[in-house]
Amino acid sequence: MKVRVLIMPKRGLLDPEGRAVKEMLTDNGFTVKDVKVGKVVELEVEEGTDIKKLVEGFLINPLVEEYIIE
Amino acid sequence: MKVRVLIMPKRGLLDPEGRAVKEMLTDNGFTVKDVKVGKVVELEVEEGTDIKKLVEGFLINPLVEEYIIE
Repeated sequence: MKVRVLIMPKRGLLDPEGRAVKEMLTDNGFTVKDVKVGKVVELEVEEGTDIKKLVEGFLINPLVEEYIIE
Repeated sequence: MKVRVLIMPKRGLLDPEGRAVKEMLTDNGFTVKDVKVGKVVELEVEEGTDIKKLVEGFLINPLVEEYIIE
């Protein structure tokens, strides 16, 4: 099965890459209110794989990141 | 308006991070057929912003990356 996991910095925590992108876009004439940068991990795994265990155990840092499974 | 852009390495091109994640998951007992790692950029911009121009001009490298706007 295919699963897409979006991993984002937790709201309120530092997101230096998001800040840098926002500044760069603003410098280039865009009006940008907010930018957040995270990761996408697209997985193709066996049926029945415990995705929550896989993601929480191996892909994210729960202190600073949150995730959405699609 | 809020826009989410998913930026992935083009199919067939090197994805060293995806390969590393696949290997790490396999070492930890998961049966993983494929892993691709990309970026998510969540933008909050003015209504009417030319998103295609923003993404193609400033966020991606069209030689090696492709994107989906959600």
